[in-house]
Amino acid sequence: MSVKKIINDPGSFVDEFVEGILLAHPDLVRTPGDDLRVLVRADAPQRGKVGIVTGGGSGHLPLFKGYVGKGLCSGVAIGNVFSSPSSEQILAATRAVDGGAGVLYLYGNYGGDVFNFDLAVDLAELDDIPTRTVLGRDDVASQPKERKHDRRGVAGILFAYKAAGAAAERGDSLEEVAAIAEDIVEHTATMGIGLAPTIMPTTGKPSFELPDGEMEIGIGIHGEPGIRRVPLETADEIAEHLVQALVGDLGLPSGARVAVLVNGLGATPLEELYVLYRKTHQLLTARGIQIAKNYIGEYATSLEMAGASISLLELNDERLALLDAPATSPFFQEH
Amino acid sequence: MSVKKIINDPGSFVDEFVEGILLAHPDLVRTPGDDLRVLVRADAPQRGKVGIVTGGGSGHLPLFKGYVGKGLCSGVAIGNVFSSPSSEQILAATRAVDGGAGVLYLYGNYGGDVFNFDLAVDLAELDDIPTRTVLGRDDVASQPKERKHDRRGVAGILFAYKAAGAAAERGDSLEEVAAIAEDIVEHTATMGIGLAPTIMPTTGKPSFELPDGEMEIGIGIHGEPGIRRVPLETADEIAEHLVQALVGDLGLPSGARVAVLVNGLGATPLEELYVLYRKTHQLLTARGIQIAKNYIGEYATSLEMAGASISLLELNDERLALLDAPATSPFFQEH
Repeated sequence: MSVKKIINDPGSFVDEFVEGILLAHPDLVRTPGDDLRVLVRADAPQRGKVGIVTGGGSGHLPLFKGYVGKGLCSGVAIGNVFSSPSSEQILAATRAVDGGAGVLYLYGNYGGDVFNFDLAVDLAELDDIPTRTVLGRDDVASQPKERKHDRRGVAGILFAYKAAGAAAERGDSLEEVAAIAEDIVEHTATMGIGLAPTIMPTTGKPSFELPDGEMEIGIGIHGEPGIRRVPLETADEIAEHLVQALVGDLGLPSGARVAVLVNGLGATPLEELYVLYRKTHQLLTARGIQIAKNYIGEYATSLEMAGASISLLELNDERLALLDAPATSPFFQEH
Repeated sequence: MSVKKIINDPGSFVDEFVEGILLAHPDLVRTPGDDLRVLVRADAPQRGKVGIVTGGGSGHLPLFKGYVGKGLCSGVAIGNVFSSPSSEQILAATRAVDGGAGVLYLYGNYGGDVFNFDLAVDLAELDDIPTRTVLGRDDVASQPKERKHDRRGVAGILFAYKAAGAAAERGDSLEEVAAIAEDIVEHTATMGIGLAPTIMPTTGKPSFELPDGEMEIGIGIHGEPGIRRVPLETADEIAEHLVQALVGDLGLPSGARVAVLVNGLGATPLEELYVLYRKTHQLLTARGIQIAKNYIGEYATSLEMAGASISLLELNDERLALLDAPATSPFFQEH
């Protein structure tokens, strides 16, 4: 297993790539204070509009900090690799994006993040900034459907960012933006497979061992192994298993419309994602499910993990219009 | 070395990912005939405008087929992994994009591609379609400056696509579009480093062996090893060596303006590319060189090779305006 990375001191890895982002995109993002771990839209706050703050560990680019921009999130608090940001950082982002209409906390369901965001809720209240919290919890492999509220959040949070960001941009209230984010999360399901582990920059070690000829089904994006280990399948078999699980979980009938996200976890070539999309498209079409939008590429990674996930969002006219609204960040564009 | 990939039969890999692209982006690209290896803009040909045809081996997405779209190339002929397309495929693309103003062949300088494109020149002449040829040859590690016309083409061809595409879009003549592409190539320089080899889908084998703790300087994008093997450097050292080589090769004085492309070769996380950009930005700024545009991400890959390249294009007002012109493909947007 190779452990080679393009880094300097592992301890300064996060600060250095955030500094790179700030140097590259000063027209789009800025730090409101001295802490490189807090990024907000260059034009924050938007007066009279709801702010959206996200956050989480590093190592997932474009997630999370890549989705700060017009029509997306207003700010982000950035943790170390696979670690939560602090409540102080979340509060700093909150203050910087507060335009007087309150702030939505929209992030993935992980213990450390929930702990620190919940602390920030209390701190923001002392500042008289009302907040609402919506958790991404789209990973169907992480918990059965009966416990779907305990599921962890993975790539499908992109849909919630996009829709909530569009709603905030048009001037919806905090309650309305939160309700839209919740509605999107409720209708999003994701499942992933891993072919090779992540290598941690701090230790240079793989996050788990995976023998030749095997793959992990239900992999997470923090180097967590999946729910079961099976012999490596073909691309078409992988698509079949994931699509079946997702369609079943969402209960999608023939005639349903969906947005599809085929997401690469880091090392998997874009060509392979398109091979996976091909079969996904065929399978959904055969079930009478119409793909109204597709996203294919790296949207939520786990450093250089090899693997991919598929996310489905069940659409209606409202959700589709919100996905179609314009958005611009250093890493995401919708026109 | 893991050999795991998300594929079906390696022999159908290329056809299947192209089919995926066609299913995902029918509004942007189409096949003019039955051959999946020929893609053109959905709205080709543009009447009265110059067509631009590119082509090359597969395994480099977004290169080459990702740059077919408005303000970019008009069509592409697609070879097997790391192999040239045939002259018949190039001719088919040529016929489909010919709008009556001639066709520019713009592709990377590799023997097989030159052979087949040159055959296509003759075939197009029989069809009374005038062509001009401009070769991407930006890899400074592949030949010394005295033999710069023999250099191979790598990621820097993006700049030529962008500028030539903008010129064709505004209605420039074939001679003018070719001159612009040539001017861009003349002022572009790229150099890359590799940390881990590509794995060939057909054999499942790595393209070369690289011991732990070493890296290749001057790596190509076809699994070719670099010009020398050295102990692994830090990100800042890598940036210093590449920037020094590129600035020297282009002879950039203080006061020069450049576009910078920090390109990932496949498996390298986006975070590491931003660490590389950070130092690149600092080094260029310290030399009094202004970065007027930057591109950071995967623009020309080599399947799942770990590594990165830096490209510089020396700008003037004309070149910058052409880079800033709008462009839309499934994989590239400029607004």
